[in-house]
Amino acid sequence: MTLLTPELRDLISSGPLAHLTTINADGSPQVSVIWIGLDGDDVVSGHMARNVKVRNVERDPRVVLSFDAPRVPGAFLAEYAVLRATATVTPGGAWDLLNNLTKVYTSPDAEFPGPKGDGFILRYSIDRVGGVGPWAAH
Amino acid sequence: MTLLTPELRDLISSGPLAHLTTINADGSPQVSVIWIGLDGDDVVSGHMARNVKVRNVERDPRVVLSFDAPRVPGAFLAEYAVLRATATVTPGGAWDLLNNLTKVYTSPDAEFPGPKGDGFILRYSIDRVGGVGPWAAH
Repeated sequence: MTLLTPELRDLISSGPLAHLTTINADGSPQVSVIWIGLDGDDVVSGHMARNVKVRNVERDPRVVLSFDAPRVPGAFLAEYAVLRATATVTPGGAWDLLNNLTKVYTSPDAEFPGPKGDGFILRYSIDRVGGVGPWAAH
Repeated sequence: MTLLTPELRDLISSGPLAHLTTINADGSPQVSVIWIGLDGDDVVSGHMARNVKVRNVERDPRVVLSFDAPRVPGAFLAEYAVLRATATVTPGGAWDLLNNLTKVYTSPDAEFPGPKGDGFILRYSIDRVGGVGPWAAH
């Protein structure tokens, strides 16, 4: 059973800025704001370098992805999603994924401007969905 | 010296949804999306109950607050702020703060609909500011 409802898939596909929380070696929280996409029932992100968030996931796969839905003026509770997930790191494929996401996050005919390379894919298996909106189980 | 530049103060005062990351007892990340305001050079938030994020801060004061700036269509890098902070919990004052923030986050003449009570204030002393935007030191 997937936790990704059609409404949540639509929100992810619309290109929300995703706040990725990982855990540093000293136990403190680390937050990076990233682009995300869907691959089947998983969420994925691409990273050209083995940076701190990638190394953190290799040490501790427990992460959170959270992102806002579009704001509705005057609404008392703004909608957002909080996804608890287990992340895995796979080498390769990052540039192609980032190039695809550039079309969502920047403009339909834009190309990812970074140099081509392999990089790393982070794949998020969703364990729980929370937040405010039709995707949140309460 | 404050890390809160005028641009960052303006962004906070505009009512961004703030993603508050704390650390659970088992070392995993916990993310709540909250309202925030300014009090001098600190960021503050109000909570009517001693919920999991308040208890997490009592155990480990290392937190991150992250929030999006308004999106600019076609911009390659969307602006956002990531604030590493040390949080403290103070009893009382939550309803009044939340009532003030309701005017920012909902509408200027709205009242906080929750029952009056003391609650807790979380106060964030900012240790480092990152992200993309004029507030980010790189």
